[in-house]
Amino acid sequence: MTEPEVFPPGTTIGILGGGQLGRMLALAAARLGMKTHIYCPDPQSPAFEVTPHKTVAAYDDEKALARFARAVDIVTYEFENVPEPTAAFLAARKPLAPGVRPLAVSQDRIAEKEFLGRSGTAIAPFRPVLTLEHLRAAVDAIGLPAVLKTTKFGYDGKGQRKIERGADIVSAFTALSGSPLVLEAFIPFEREISVVVARNARGQIRDYDAAENIHRNHILHTSTVPAAIDDPTARKASRIAHQIAGALDYVGVMGIEFFVLPGTPRPELLVNEIAPRVHNSGHWTEAVCLTDQFEQHIRAILNWPLGDPSRFADVQMLNLVGDDLAGISAKLRPGMQPHIYGKSEARPGRKMGHINRVEL
Amino acid sequence: MTEPEVFPPGTTIGILGGGQLGRMLALAAARLGMKTHIYCPDPQSPAFEVTPHKTVAAYDDEKALARFARAVDIVTYEFENVPEPTAAFLAARKPLAPGVRPLAVSQDRIAEKEFLGRSGTAIAPFRPVLTLEHLRAAVDAIGLPAVLKTTKFGYDGKGQRKIERGADIVSAFTALSGSPLVLEAFIPFEREISVVVARNARGQIRDYDAAENIHRNHILHTSTVPAAIDDPTARKASRIAHQIAGALDYVGVMGIEFFVLPGTPRPELLVNEIAPRVHNSGHWTEAVCLTDQFEQHIRAILNWPLGDPSRFADVQMLNLVGDDLAGISAKLRPGMQPHIYGKSEARPGRKMGHINRVEL
Repeated sequence: MTEPEVFPPGTTIGILGGGQLGRMLALAAARLGMKTHIYCPDPQSPAFEVTPHKTVAAYDDEKALARFARAVDIVTYEFENVPEPTAAFLAARKPLAPGVRPLAVSQDRIAEKEFLGRSGTAIAPFRPVLTLEHLRAAVDAIGLPAVLKTTKFGYDGKGQRKIERGADIVSAFTALSGSPLVLEAFIPFEREISVVVARNARGQIRDYDAAENIHRNHILHTSTVPAAIDDPTARKASRIAHQIAGALDYVGVMGIEFFVLPGTPRPELLVNEIAPRVHNSGHWTEAVCLTDQFEQHIRAILNWPLGDPSRFADVQMLNLVGDDLAGISAKLRPGMQPHIYGKSEARPGRKMGHINRVEL
Repeated sequence: MTEPEVFPPGTTIGILGGGQLGRMLALAAARLGMKTHIYCPDPQSPAFEVTPHKTVAAYDDEKALARFARAVDIVTYEFENVPEPTAAFLAARKPLAPGVRPLAVSQDRIAEKEFLGRSGTAIAPFRPVLTLEHLRAAVDAIGLPAVLKTTKFGYDGKGQRKIERGADIVSAFTALSGSPLVLEAFIPFEREISVVVARNARGQIRDYDAAENIHRNHILHTSTVPAAIDDPTARKASRIAHQIAGALDYVGVMGIEFFVLPGTPRPELLVNEIAPRVHNSGHWTEAVCLTDQFEQHIRAILNWPLGDPSRFADVQMLNLVGDDLAGISAKLRPGMQPHIYGKSEARPGRKMGHINRVEL
């Protein structure tokens, strides 16, 4: 069996997606002496500002994809909705990390839940829903309240409806029907935490401390580290993260979101979802870890030894959304580390940057 | 009196010089949401890999300089040997920070010593030398050993000769003559330290802890923090750094090198030289400070509030020179943060990257 390749400085990393995550990956790659090439259909992509190498083309443009594949040594991605044919096309030409399978698993809520269930991970009860009859049967099985979700392309609260009572069933179904759905039990969680975990091709796994996440308008508002959980719960979340990364033969950084439920003698942990990429709830690692999640992802896909994920200090990451960026320089105080994404236009709900606030 | 301008995210920063310092400045600027445009005559400049905006032209190409000035909002530089006419040409068109005066002072050892002397800073005895007769008189005045240096363009030990005894005088003069020279007393220092200090246009000044520097073959080998000096000496170095930054109306980050001499009751501090730019001996700030020297420089020139320079941990920066980069990924251990400059060719004595080793 041949050892997986180790990519040296000077490697050109192709990145699918030109948003802030692609931009931060490119910056981390540059710190390791790598070149980057960003592929994104949007000519205004913020990641285009941090490298001279770009492709502006649709994800199904095979000529552009073939040129991109020739121009790079390895391909990674910043978002889980890379179309499967795009991923397969590229994977046939150059190493693709994290790879096709994590995309398939994370793009479809049912595939994700089935994978998690098979790997022994506790998740909320769910039922696939294609018809109104399925939905009624699913409500009978799971109970109310419950949440109806599209199986694909949901993010930041889009593509989901809470069903509180029987009278909500038809309207929820009508609002979302037209694509496959899944009904999930509504989890009355105490808190939501996430773990960012990295694995490289030689099987080394490292995870960062769990962050506790607060959302506003379905968009991540703050991630606080340490999370208000006891040590056994933290260790359990870490163990689950290692197990998922191993079960997927994962290469790169992934984010794993958990619900923490009241339980006896210990809180219960359910995995909510997994994201096969660097994760908004891991941006705090920039401020207080020697190796942040972006460098960790680059190290992992290049098959470098992973960096130490331990942290120097307590930290809270605050997302800057929409107009939050206005007058930012005047708002900075000691102990704040800003990261601004260089987006030209501040639209409502658009993530414009974040600030890490550190207890010095 | 109008307040100096504060530059917002989206500002385009022009950077003169495309080496590793320009590259690291560009990466820091990107983290604050800025665009960068690199100006450098060398088409292989490593900084060209971290932005789509570049000018490849000589520093005296006024057409290229005029185009560059139109394309940017503010100009800074990564090296002190920016030709004076280039700096003046740009300063007439766009804000230039740190500005023309720090360049004039630091480009000429005699101007530098005269400035330092006027501002009350202790320095080694020196004499300007244009002829062999000057040199003999200077040796009589200062004593031996002494060091003869060209007044301009010296770096990494180039352009200097040590004079141990009378018999060395003619050979030292012959080796360096043809340009203005200066004879400096040889300082039998205990150690060499440096302080990186930042000042913004509103007059805020912050300095990082002093680093202790070891050179190999006249090239910086390690910078260790904390330096082995007592607190009063550290405070004195900090005070001198503040004073120099203030006396120059400096805007940006500068490096100040000191000799530490045995003294009673306290060690004596002599300023060796000042560098009007981010400094190799400040690279450790990347690993253990919330705001590193590169971000601090960008904050300073944009007239943002300066970041907190305090540090989380003890650290040693090790330069990677020439072949040191070979097989780098296999050499990484926990507690090491690498930064690799993306230079295509490893020549002897060429700085290829650095590693920060942190006490975790």
